[in-house]
Amino acid sequence: MKNQVNLLKDDERIDQLYSNDVRLIQSPSCFAFSLDAVLLADFVRPNQRQRLRTVDLCAGNAAIGLFLHDKLGGQFTEVELQPRIADIARRSIELNGLAERYQVLNLDIADVFSVIPKDSADVVLCNPPYFPVTAKSQKNPNQYLAIARHELKTNLVTVARQMSGLLKMNGHGYLVHRPDRLTEILTVLQQNRLVPKRLRLIYPKPGREANMVLIEVIKDGKAGGLKVVPPLTVNDAAGNYQPEVRKLLYGEE
Amino acid sequence: MKNQVNLLKDDERIDQLYSNDVRLIQSPSCFAFSLDAVLLADFVRPNQRQRLRTVDLCAGNAAIGLFLHDKLGGQFTEVELQPRIADIARRSIELNGLAERYQVLNLDIADVFSVIPKDSADVVLCNPPYFPVTAKSQKNPNQYLAIARHELKTNLVTVARQMSGLLKMNGHGYLVHRPDRLTEILTVLQQNRLVPKRLRLIYPKPGREANMVLIEVIKDGKAGGLKVVPPLTVNDAAGNYQPEVRKLLYGEE
Repeated sequence: MKNQVNLLKDDERIDQLYSNDVRLIQSPSCFAFSLDAVLLADFVRPNQRQRLRTVDLCAGNAAIGLFLHDKLGGQFTEVELQPRIADIARRSIELNGLAERYQVLNLDIADVFSVIPKDSADVVLCNPPYFPVTAKSQKNPNQYLAIARHELKTNLVTVARQMSGLLKMNGHGYLVHRPDRLTEILTVLQQNRLVPKRLRLIYPKPGREANMVLIEVIKDGKAGGLKVVPPLTVNDAAGNYQPEVRKLLYGEE
Repeated sequence: MKNQVNLLKDDERIDQLYSNDVRLIQSPSCFAFSLDAVLLADFVRPNQRQRLRTVDLCAGNAAIGLFLHDKLGGQFTEVELQPRIADIARRSIELNGLAERYQVLNLDIADVFSVIPKDSADVVLCNPPYFPVTAKSQKNPNQYLAIARHELKTNLVTVARQMSGLLKMNGHGYLVHRPDRLTEILTVLQQNRLVPKRLRLIYPKPGREANMVLIEVIKDGKAGGLKVVPPLTVNDAAGNYQPEVRKLLYGEE
């Protein structure tokens, strides 16, 4: 493994997910993974098949893909639009000694079929920008964060279309998004041959509305039969992480 | 109030919801309200306006409507297809001394506009049959229960169309249903101008999948902005009602 310091630029630092020994290069001015990525990775069903092909759309620093290095076998392709963030992803992969299994494409997900064949992926992951574009979202002075959070460069319809195009029949897609758009999300997925089969709601605190939804889809799956699995409330009433979250972040039982 | 015994027929009994002093005529062979009705009534927003018009579709013994006698003002119309159950609803209303505010229509909800004008209701409630028709569902020897549980005489599309037709613009609809059909439910509501605005998942026990979903819609509401409110887990791990449920059923704090 390379000297860690040589892998860092500018304001970057290395953060570690203690629960599975993954180290990630992060930059507060540009990209840092959030609990959303940790929870989506946790939501993915394990599949250790050696020939598995996983594509991570809107990959950021490859956090979700890297969190899954043990749970999923085979090869990962991390697709990230922003050059500086794709570069962080490449160095994060190197930092973890996983360059043989991970490839980074600095590409708009709309152009993904110029590199990855259609109907070729067993698993597609996506933690997309959550917020529709409004006058306000365009004014965010930090363009890295604006593009990661707002649908400036892609949107839900494109995410669903590309996820569907990439997946083999009966392949599994995983999406994290905002529950305030749940009707639209389920409709758009269904319109793109992605049948929602499992769903988990995440609540920030007891007594508060859900602020995250995790969805597993099966391409060309049988309609209906959606399982809404037990919810997660991230913090207790005092604002401390609940045991399930502590375990995911720090590996504590 | 009439002598209670004179109001009962065959195998009927009177059950009471202690939390709000409503008494209901029930018959194990024909119709008994379930926790679903109690939770849907609890989910309804209060509105004491004297001129409010509420319609309860697939009303059964009028349980949901009666549970709401304090929370909603104005007049209730209970629409029930099965003559024997509509008759129980009438006697349950009489038992509670509420005949001046409640009317029962023994009618298929598909024919509701023969009696109730379109765009006339402020609130529409519905606890419909949950299960699509299969070979098995047709074989239930008890036709009362089969019709209440399976989509033998109505279905989700008809429920949504009639709810939408009855509601005034910006009127509120409330539906309880099964989460395994959530994608279809949200899609069908949206297709019928009913915009889901609030949703609650009900889980039977810690660690188990949701088995009930409560949905509030607004006719011609602004799309998006769905609030997924805090979940309810009905029983604790030992199988005893959680405090929130005990309070709804028995009035205990």
